[in-house]
Amino acid sequence: MRWSQYFVPTLKEAPSDAEIASHKLMVRAGMIHKAPGGYTWLPLGLRALKRVEAIVRNHMGRLGAVEVCTVPRQTEERDGKPERACIFDYADPSPFMGVARSHIGSYRQLPKVLFQIQTRSTGEPHQRSAMLFPSQALTMDAYVLTRNPVSLYESCHQFDHMLEDLCRLTGLAWFWIGGDGSDDSEIDVEYIAIAGAGEKRIARSDSGYVGIIEHTNVQPYPKEKGPAPGDMRLVDTPGTATVVDVSNLLRVPPSRVIKTLIYLADSQPVAALVRGDHELNEYKLRTQINASALMIADPATVESVTGAPVGFAGPVGLRIPMIVDFAVDAMAWGVTGANKAGAHFVNVVPNRDFPVLRTEDIHLATEGDLDPLQAMPLTFHRGIEVGHVFTLGRQQSEALGATYLDETGNLQYMAVGYVGISLTRILAAAIETSHDDAGIIWKKSLAPFDCEIVAIDVRDDQVRKAAGDLHDALTSRGIDVLYDDRDLSPGIKFNDADLIGLPLRVTIGKRSLKKGGIELKRRTAPDIETVPLPDAPSRIAALVQS
Amino acid sequence: MRWSQYFVPTLKEAPSDAEIASHKLMVRAGMIHKAPGGYTWLPLGLRALKRVEAIVRNHMGRLGAVEVCTVPRQTEERDGKPERACIFDYADPSPFMGVARSHIGSYRQLPKVLFQIQTRSTGEPHQRSAMLFPSQALTMDAYVLTRNPVSLYESCHQFDHMLEDLCRLTGLAWFWIGGDGSDDSEIDVEYIAIAGAGEKRIARSDSGYVGIIEHTNVQPYPKEKGPAPGDMRLVDTPGTATVVDVSNLLRVPPSRVIKTLIYLADSQPVAALVRGDHELNEYKLRTQINASALMIADPATVESVTGAPVGFAGPVGLRIPMIVDFAVDAMAWGVTGANKAGAHFVNVVPNRDFPVLRTEDIHLATEGDLDPLQAMPLTFHRGIEVGHVFTLGRQQSEALGATYLDETGNLQYMAVGYVGISLTRILAAAIETSHDDAGIIWKKSLAPFDCEIVAIDVRDDQVRKAAGDLHDALTSRGIDVLYDDRDLSPGIKFNDADLIGLPLRVTIGKRSLKKGGIELKRRTAPDIETVPLPDAPSRIAALVQS
Repeated sequence: MRWSQYFVPTLKEAPSDAEIASHKLMVRAGMIHKAPGGYTWLPLGLRALKRVEAIVRNHMGRLGAVEVCTVPRQTEERDGKPERACIFDYADPSPFMGVARSHIGSYRQLPKVLFQIQTRSTGEPHQRSAMLFPSQALTMDAYVLTRNPVSLYESCHQFDHMLEDLCRLTGLAWFWIGGDGSDDSEIDVEYIAIAGAGEKRIARSDSGYVGIIEHTNVQPYPKEKGPAPGDMRLVDTPGTATVVDVSNLLRVPPSRVIKTLIYLADSQPVAALVRGDHELNEYKLRTQINASALMIADPATVESVTGAPVGFAGPVGLRIPMIVDFAVDAMAWGVTGANKAGAHFVNVVPNRDFPVLRTEDIHLATEGDLDPLQAMPLTFHRGIEVGHVFTLGRQQSEALGATYLDETGNLQYMAVGYVGISLTRILAAAIETSHDDAGIIWKKSLAPFDCEIVAIDVRDDQVRKAAGDLHDALTSRGIDVLYDDRDLSPGIKFNDADLIGLPLRVTIGKRSLKKGGIELKRRTAPDIETVPLPDAPSRIAALVQS
Repeated sequence: MRWSQYFVPTLKEAPSDAEIASHKLMVRAGMIHKAPGGYTWLPLGLRALKRVEAIVRNHMGRLGAVEVCTVPRQTEERDGKPERACIFDYADPSPFMGVARSHIGSYRQLPKVLFQIQTRSTGEPHQRSAMLFPSQALTMDAYVLTRNPVSLYESCHQFDHMLEDLCRLTGLAWFWIGGDGSDDSEIDVEYIAIAGAGEKRIARSDSGYVGIIEHTNVQPYPKEKGPAPGDMRLVDTPGTATVVDVSNLLRVPPSRVIKTLIYLADSQPVAALVRGDHELNEYKLRTQINASALMIADPATVESVTGAPVGFAGPVGLRIPMIVDFAVDAMAWGVTGANKAGAHFVNVVPNRDFPVLRTEDIHLATEGDLDPLQAMPLTFHRGIEVGHVFTLGRQQSEALGATYLDETGNLQYMAVGYVGISLTRILAAAIETSHDDAGIIWKKSLAPFDCEIVAIDVRDDQVRKAAGDLHDALTSRGIDVLYDDRDLSPGIKFNDADLIGLPLRVTIGKRSLKKGGIELKRRTAPDIETVPLPDAPSRIAALVQS
């Protein structure tokens, strides 16, 4: 493809509303055009998106899934005019279930996966960060129709391989965030890819552990050595409302303060103790005590339970159930509220000055905490949801009439699952993860073209002929090549080449021809390799296809 | 692809709401599923649709057009809920013009064609006849950006080759219905394909003439021989309201009656004379007399102009301009209204009894009329609009800011055209045109698979192995093969093979193996060819690729 006949409107400056790298780069590289009425994929962006699409379609084919395409009906009239037809809502199962109900009736036809790849509403109410949180995205929606929950669980896990491959090809790490695995018949999980600017907070460690921070359990803390500096005693702390206030007043670090938080767990008051430098993890607390509803207690309840206003609760003498984070249990001594306004206890020793009947992991994991697998230190990252897997409950199957006859001729409800993958997000996340100051750095698998020929001195006949011949030779070998034939300065063309970031740059100019050939440079390395003109096609093919 | 692992839910009966062949066949062959909420392309239909799409995309690439993809923004909230995003209206130019305005600024970048292939609203308010008049269709929308109207006209005509090829591949005839060519700067034309069940009425002749009946001019009629049977005289015709009444009463054929129709052309009364067996063509009349507005006169006007109520107008003594169809001018004599209630003249001779100052072609062409090219008899057919080409007027270009700098540095408005092609309609029209009582008859170019293997006696190990091996051998040659491996009776499988209509059927069974091989049958012919098993792949490849 010759640049002059193509349409790659690169920009020197990123738009002022672009905050994240992938947004800036996709606009600057002429991949997308944004406007108040929506956005448009430009040719280069569309090519990359179609490469993601091809990878997904290929995988779905290998899984035996069959592709369909649902088309909504023109909607009713409104204000006298026919209302415009609408893209299907986020994961609307009804058209798929309609097909299943009409055309699948026997256990012999199951399992069956129906999928489609279409641009549709993501459920994001507003367009944010361009393609990372689009309100409309190219999406693969699959409905997994199976005989029973066990088969469904297995079928849903088959998609893991596709995600693994997609993420390998895009340079993203991924993992499946399950529920707690307590009930196989209910799946509601997300595929998360590690990507800067993602909305999910992720913990990883060198052991291979990776998980949402909120869901990350950590290793118990070792018992702190040494005795308390003295007996427990009451000190006046008037006007201290926070851990920081107490820490400053009493000249102890926040990690020496024990926070006592009063919660209502299924309407019953409980106390949760965490270190002053830790945050209570409500998800963990609720899970550990198996509460259906958990909420922080109102000031009146706190006062009636502790006898003191909010800010002065403490475990000493408290008569409600206490859940003690094991980082608190590991403390040699600490500072706690005294259940009395304007007063704290110092030199409080767990198990001596208050009973520790139940220790749990209830603090929000922090960087440096040790992972649950091999006790390696955790580091924190950002992640983005690229896929979603969930089961449609029995009630839904009944409502949608998804039934089949089993081996014995009895009518059964199918176990139905949904898998959704956002191809748009995967592409944006891949750019977010792989770029430098000069531009995008494409992985070969997603690059919109395999390589770019940059011709310098295009007014020179010899250069133009050599570059044109090479373009044709590569194209006839099935290599996708973008040939920058514009009559512009080398600086502009090299900058554009770095910006659009194809894996291999091939430079042809009077200077390179004088040296006997062309110059090859990979996007990821500064080295330049000079190759004789006749050897160029095979050398380039070898690099592109390696 | 093995049928048992695929999803081709064929049906014995067509749905009760299906009226036309393509609708019935697409549903019965498991190509589409219709439901109140919309329709779904099933795998076989989607494959065929994607073949049309590939042909169009390939052509657009050869024309140097570049592909984009416009995505609408999530719309505003309504009733407190975010409204669902909407598929772009029929040919909404704004996103394309936004791209042009932002990224095209110089004459050097023109002409440029931006296109997209997307499912979108067709402007049809209701789904009719399934895929022939869908309210949502897969559509190729192209915006043609050029420097001036002459360049635009040339660019728009480039799409003719694509239509020609598409119609050749689908078995459809096509033509471009232009305006009258009086002003090159305004194009508004349709691509019409000949297809039964279409909404357009088409005239053709053996000379190659093809056109909308309303727009078809015909050859002048030869002068009728022989004198009138006598002098003009007045006869009483009380209660005759129509040509048929007069014809019955006076015992002359309708072709002997001269209808005199009073019109208001730009508010001025005129009389139009056509034969009683002809229909006046208002399009022709308006064009011939160059009227901006034409309407049939109200009864009061008729009475004031002719002195008689409606039904008794005639040319004798009429004092308003008369346009005489040349079929009337060719009559030796006729019967006309007498401009008097309940009376007609008989033996009226044109040019003797009333002046013929202006003869024109103003009757609606009838079958048997002679075409304007080579005077061959016309036959009538049905056609369907598969494409639309029109220019966006200067006002639109100004509103949308589509400007560029010309060679001399002056700001100019682009001449912008639109080309839309309905891929869904083309597919439906192809089926409408090519089927028999047993099912679809695919052209090779659109067939969802190249051939079908029908295995008889699939429980037999030898048959299963031979069929499976052949399936694999053909697949590895790049041939798309559907292998019916279901354990069903030969009758059902042969019926399904005819119904889905792939070009070539390959039968393998105990009987064929005993005869030493396989049986080949084309969908279009009854002959069966027996081919030895080892020769099967190359013989099938030769037939498929020929």
